[in-house]
Amino acid sequence: MPSDLERAMETLIVVFHRYADTEGSKASLSRKELKMLMEKELSSFLKTQKDPAAVDRIMKDLDSNGDGEVNFEEFVSLVVGLSIACEQIYQKHAQVPAVKKN
Amino acid sequence: MPSDLERAMETLIVVFHRYADTEGSKASLSRKELKMLMEKELSSFLKTQKDPAAVDRIMKDLDSNGDGEVNFEEFVSLVVGLSIACEQIYQKHAQVPAVKKN
Repeated sequence: MPSDLERAMETLIVVFHRYADTEGSKASLSRKELKMLMEKELSSFLKTQKDPAAVDRIMKDLDSNGDGEVNFEEFVSLVVGLSIACEQIYQKHAQVPAVKKN
Repeated sequence: MPSDLERAMETLIVVFHRYADTEGSKASLSRKELKMLMEKELSSFLKTQKDPAAVDRIMKDLDSNGDGEVNFEEFVSLVVGLSIACEQIYQKHAQVPAVKKN
């Protein structure tokens, strides 16, 4: 049986292809596919990104090879960035000292 | 309810801290903690890494700031590397052409 971590890695691949396989190249997300992925899969993270230019901005940031599409490597850099930001918040909350018992 | 992708990101954080919180700094994995994580969470990926020096080698590769510990950012670089390798295999298999119907 796969471990939690192996299942999480599988999810990254499955979610990417859930949207990348919709139209055009199956190896990358078009602007439309990225927009759909962000709306469906990252809605609670990206609630603040309501302006129409947000997807274009994120697309430009992610598209490190400048081909107008987001491939899997570029996509995981978004996931990594968000995970690192969340983990920093997690650590801050975990650092709250326990209440002394006496 | 969190999406599949949000749940996968949460899993990365939870799994990291499941081991990082065991001893010493809770913000990073010691060699012993990394070894335990790899044995429990990545056993099917790292089956080939049976020699005792493998953990040290991987630790050295991941420890980009050279402090002898693996922090969350360094840990996700391992997850990303493995995910990218898996996704390339996934794509190769997905490229098998469909059988023509006529």
